[in-house]
Amino acid sequence: MNKWKRSARIVDMTRQLIQHPHRLIPLSTFAERYDTAKSSISEDLTIIHEVMSTTGQGGLETLAGAAGGVRYIPGMDRKTAEEVMRSLCRELSNPDRILPGGFLYMSDLLGQPALLREIGQIWASVFAKEQVNAVVTVETKGIPLALAAAAHLGVPVAIVRQGNRVTEGSVVTVNTVSGSSRRIRTLSLSRRSLKEGSRVLIIDDFMKAGGTIRGMIDLLSEFQAEVVGAGVLVESAAQERLVENVVSLAKIKSIDEKQRTVDVQLGNLFEKGWEVG
Amino acid sequence: MNKWKRSARIVDMTRQLIQHPHRLIPLSTFAERYDTAKSSISEDLTIIHEVMSTTGQGGLETLAGAAGGVRYIPGMDRKTAEEVMRSLCRELSNPDRILPGGFLYMSDLLGQPALLREIGQIWASVFAKEQVNAVVTVETKGIPLALAAAAHLGVPVAIVRQGNRVTEGSVVTVNTVSGSSRRIRTLSLSRRSLKEGSRVLIIDDFMKAGGTIRGMIDLLSEFQAEVVGAGVLVESAAQERLVENVVSLAKIKSIDEKQRTVDVQLGNLFEKGWEVG
Repeated sequence: MNKWKRSARIVDMTRQLIQHPHRLIPLSTFAERYDTAKSSISEDLTIIHEVMSTTGQGGLETLAGAAGGVRYIPGMDRKTAEEVMRSLCRELSNPDRILPGGFLYMSDLLGQPALLREIGQIWASVFAKEQVNAVVTVETKGIPLALAAAAHLGVPVAIVRQGNRVTEGSVVTVNTVSGSSRRIRTLSLSRRSLKEGSRVLIIDDFMKAGGTIRGMIDLLSEFQAEVVGAGVLVESAAQERLVENVVSLAKIKSIDEKQRTVDVQLGNLFEKGWEVG
Repeated sequence: MNKWKRSARIVDMTRQLIQHPHRLIPLSTFAERYDTAKSSISEDLTIIHEVMSTTGQGGLETLAGAAGGVRYIPGMDRKTAEEVMRSLCRELSNPDRILPGGFLYMSDLLGQPALLREIGQIWASVFAKEQVNAVVTVETKGIPLALAAAAHLGVPVAIVRQGNRVTEGSVVTVNTVSGSSRRIRTLSLSRRSLKEGSRVLIIDDFMKAGGTIRGMIDLLSEFQAEVVGAGVLVESAAQERLVENVVSLAKIKSIDEKQRTVDVQLGNLFEKGWEVG
């Protein structure tokens, strides 16, 4: 392909921008790739931005100057986010999901790429302005959600392990007490998985009393990390909370094992005046 | 946006196709969304396909007829895949990655979204024709790779757990002996995480003797699943293998803890006459 027409350039630029969220791409990179004037590239980018923003997919951010360029900031408008989560709440309210002990089966949902992408887009919208450097989660079920958020924020994920693994090298460890079950757990994070002084977003699948997130916050303080946000897919009613300001996308109001009923509603994100960047 | 110009349509279609790999989208869906004749949509799709295929990103597949439509089949050409993996092999050959016991630190790489996307694209290319229904992996380090592959194949992931978790509901369990360490491990998979008779792709981060993959194959036979392929990011030299036909992207030739040298080369994928779909 020697001569790139506008329509062809637009396909290729849209693809590159979507695949590398938050990555700054110099206009000269595009100008050279397509052998086209920067002014034409700017016009292309205006079209891409307009479509992205009017379809509620976020938009492009252009930085002027020598170190400038363009980057894609993924987003999801509140209405779409509510639709995604209302549909998920209905799915979670299926009594077939009730497990012994009052747990709710969610693992299948955490393996669906299309749903994960949408949830990742919601997290990226909510925390877009926090200048997040890294997403941290704890194994196992938090991992798919953390990866989805990180992909849309364009930052790496560090996974806190339960116990201590030889394949993680030198680790920092904390012991934590689960707020709901009062069980002691060891959480460890590899020294080299997180740069000191990172601005961290904590993501997990489920929160009851918040003992795990409390443990992660303690662990992260050993890395001089600043926790700029925390989000869970589902929070459960709990009398006492060990952490504050955790954003939830869904909330379990009640699970009745005998009556076989579950009530899952939208989470606290939708109670607040959430504005998309 | 009432009137969609070609350039605007192309941005939106490219975005939708990329975000939903392997999902068949009827042409009428596009025609209605843009209030445009199907013939114009077909022309748009021709442009998108041409750019995708000439830039080594896979291409579009069009199915004619009433149940027809278009879908994006992600791909990566062999040359690009080799470049991605050569760069990763160099990174893995850094002696700072040597851990006590002859292990290699890889966790940081498994948390990088851009790299995971590229590796996912490679897996999707290699197994594009196997009509995969589900990707199966074992916790913990296989999860990011499995999710990346599944996202590009447009199929769900099921995660095999070590031990047995109350949040997984009814599970099938096998006991397996690690080929290298001779340790007994319990692998379990939730009954409802995988449909019976699925065509499964197994993905993991690391293989030595292959005991874990062997265990997964045994476990999957309880689900009447057909294992249509297995892939690992890195394989290590082992005298005896418990499984055959596992595709590796990289191969550890040697780790010398005393001399502090590591030799990582391209995996067996690149030895074969690998053809991209």
